[in-house]
Amino acid sequence: MGTDALLTELREALGKDAVLADPEVIDSYARDMMPLAPSGRPLAVVLPSDVAGVQATVRACAAAGVPIVPRGAGSGLSGAANAVDGCVMLVMTRFDKVLEIDPGNRLAVVQPGVINLDFRTAVEKHGLFYPPDPSSYDWCTIGGNLSTNAGGLCCVKYGVTTDSVLGLEVVLADGSLLKTGRRTVKGVAGYDLTKLFIGSEGTLGVITQATVALRPLPQAPGTLVAGFDATEKAGEAVARIVRDGLVPSLMEIMDASSIKAAETYLNTDLGAGSDCMALLLCQSDAGGEVARRELAAIEKICVDCGSTMAYATDDLAEGRMLMQARRVVLTALEQYGVWLTDDVCVPRTRIAELISACERISQEVGLRIAVVGHAGDGNMHPTIVYSPDSPEEFERARRAFDDILDVGLSLGGTVTGEHGVGKIKRDWLAREIGPVGIRVHRQIKQALDPDNLFNPGSMFSMS
Amino acid sequence: MGTDALLTELREALGKDAVLADPEVIDSYARDMMPLAPSGRPLAVVLPSDVAGVQATVRACAAAGVPIVPRGAGSGLSGAANAVDGCVMLVMTRFDKVLEIDPGNRLAVVQPGVINLDFRTAVEKHGLFYPPDPSSYDWCTIGGNLSTNAGGLCCVKYGVTTDSVLGLEVVLADGSLLKTGRRTVKGVAGYDLTKLFIGSEGTLGVITQATVALRPLPQAPGTLVAGFDATEKAGEAVARIVRDGLVPSLMEIMDASSIKAAETYLNTDLGAGSDCMALLLCQSDAGGEVARRELAAIEKICVDCGSTMAYATDDLAEGRMLMQARRVVLTALEQYGVWLTDDVCVPRTRIAELISACERISQEVGLRIAVVGHAGDGNMHPTIVYSPDSPEEFERARRAFDDILDVGLSLGGTVTGEHGVGKIKRDWLAREIGPVGIRVHRQIKQALDPDNLFNPGSMFSMS
Repeated sequence: MGTDALLTELREALGKDAVLADPEVIDSYARDMMPLAPSGRPLAVVLPSDVAGVQATVRACAAAGVPIVPRGAGSGLSGAANAVDGCVMLVMTRFDKVLEIDPGNRLAVVQPGVINLDFRTAVEKHGLFYPPDPSSYDWCTIGGNLSTNAGGLCCVKYGVTTDSVLGLEVVLADGSLLKTGRRTVKGVAGYDLTKLFIGSEGTLGVITQATVALRPLPQAPGTLVAGFDATEKAGEAVARIVRDGLVPSLMEIMDASSIKAAETYLNTDLGAGSDCMALLLCQSDAGGEVARRELAAIEKICVDCGSTMAYATDDLAEGRMLMQARRVVLTALEQYGVWLTDDVCVPRTRIAELISACERISQEVGLRIAVVGHAGDGNMHPTIVYSPDSPEEFERARRAFDDILDVGLSLGGTVTGEHGVGKIKRDWLAREIGPVGIRVHRQIKQALDPDNLFNPGSMFSMS
Repeated sequence: MGTDALLTELREALGKDAVLADPEVIDSYARDMMPLAPSGRPLAVVLPSDVAGVQATVRACAAAGVPIVPRGAGSGLSGAANAVDGCVMLVMTRFDKVLEIDPGNRLAVVQPGVINLDFRTAVEKHGLFYPPDPSSYDWCTIGGNLSTNAGGLCCVKYGVTTDSVLGLEVVLADGSLLKTGRRTVKGVAGYDLTKLFIGSEGTLGVITQATVALRPLPQAPGTLVAGFDATEKAGEAVARIVRDGLVPSLMEIMDASSIKAAETYLNTDLGAGSDCMALLLCQSDAGGEVARRELAAIEKICVDCGSTMAYATDDLAEGRMLMQARRVVLTALEQYGVWLTDDVCVPRTRIAELISACERISQEVGLRIAVVGHAGDGNMHPTIVYSPDSPEEFERARRAFDDILDVGLSLGGTVTGEHGVGKIKRDWLAREIGPVGIRVHRQIKQALDPDNLFNPGSMFSMS
């Protein structure tokens, strides 16, 4: 079948407005937010509104031998949602309904195109809480969160996306509809297919619906900020907080570069002093006296570990102000150039070593590297700043990006804590999981998608 | 290769004491604890002590075309660890070491043959907590817990086994060693193979090691007991507790039959009155004032829902005494015959309907059915009592067992909350997940174990 015939067939099945082939329009759907990732030229963009539309697209593309790259809003940071040449971009943003909220069973049924923030807001009205909060929460979609097993600031206490999902509906490579999981909070009927599809980055099927478990809405958070004149001291504080069994609802770290960028951008001094090398930001959402006790225990550990400044508040506005320093880092770095953010996760006792290594790499490549990260789970985002006009700087940034992953692995970590493998870390995945691991990935992909229809070449190659 | 040659090869590779073929000995390894499940006659029992021994067994059996059924202590309740004719029982109990406890990263590395209680005790010495606590925790092994994705009383607050596991080592059907997951608390490098193997009931490989996440040791629990003169009122209380966002560390329910059996066995009156139709037992391990507040809020809901008796205590000995009624139910039922325990999980709002249906089924089949269950997650264990000397009663028990699953599905539940599918619920799995679901199971099994070496015919058939 020629491509014209495919487009005609898709327009007949889904309606004209659901199949876009205008070059400018399709280009705007061809990339996510990761500058390192290669991107091809799509044949067309398809925006189905229902399962039948997805099934028709999958069947038509399979018959025509045209690959499919499923995507949501395109906020990803691994190129997983980038086009491959001649593909159909299957954009799921019209699946935008919260189908059910069941407070008695603390669950909801949601379509993949719903924006994370809209979903959070919808369940909050019932006093319920959907934890996963990637930093793009105000524009990323639930489907993208599912496909990348997204994390966020919540993870130290509430886990990642997969920990909140009870079941999925997925359109498979032959167009059939698979229902995984269940509506109950427990269940062991068969293989855990739900968690196999979560984080599979669009390589195994197209998620059309999710049933998710919700939590009680937490209390308004109390906030603690602590400054350290040496990264090692902050790292030791994190390790002790973990060892002492404290579970804050947020625990973020900023290195000296991040602090400096935020202070310059906000035109303020974060109160940490000019010799501040690391800032630890913690919150407790346990409420009232418990939260105060939790933060006091964390504060004591910070002071014991040599914190030069520690301050806790349960005033909400003040807490938000303290958190602002963390939230503005990426924007603040744009003062100096464009940024390339890495994603590496190390055992929580090794955070200081990772940050020190980033300082060394920064000097080696001659580029600013600012480390911010989810200290509570060891998931660091060293962010490299380079000039958009210098291909040579870009190459150095790319080298730093790889050097950081190398260090992460050598510290017993993983090459991606939450952004995914996509089209930029294929070689790194192979290095991390080894030939047996890659073979098992290929076997599963081959079993479920024998013609390599979905997102071919992403995450790993078939040969 | 003849079977004698296989045994000779295995003895040479693993040592004589690791390969048992004495008929009486191998019979003692041929069954788990589920009387309904069929069991074949094993060819031999192999007890490897290291990965090389497992690999040698897998390769030799694959070459000889002899199936392998992996097992631990044999405490399972689905026949998943029952022999198939002519198989090698691969008994993992000699993998009995806790290899590492890392308090700074709150993780441990453990071999599959370690008994759950021994592991709990080992990590407790470091102030750490491994939540999964199936009722056989004092003799079941971690490997069995992983293979069945075991639950227990902890699940309402702490989830099931899969929620505590970071990574596995698994010997595959070709004898190669797969390492899944990582030592970090977050990570999205590749498919979630860890959670695919967990709960796969020995059909995909042999787990030889697990890295698990630990939690801070909880506080000593406070305990609440509440009696209701109607099952519906207890069910309403459970739904309201969930809806109000309360997360006790334990929430168990007993129906009238269970209460009666326990009272008779303990020769005491549980203080619930003769018209008590359901007992709710809750604990909070949040500690001190928080636990008292949590239990007070639950108590208020129970009273609002018409509880005829509600009593809370933070005295540990008294709490244990109250919990004893729940713990003795299965033993207490042995006063009346032998029991067959079912395992069904329903949405938490439907518990009362399930219990009522069990009363109806009990009358229909003319057998005592006592319902105990993990009310906090809707996971009920209706337990059918029959005479061991009456094949006809056994048939009626089997009918009741199926009728209960039928009701569970009709209430939007699953046919197994924590015991697994094994050799008794194959048809039920097929009914619950449908033909597309079964096809995907077969595709994955075929991809990873093309010769159907591991536990063939368990969970689902290949044709």
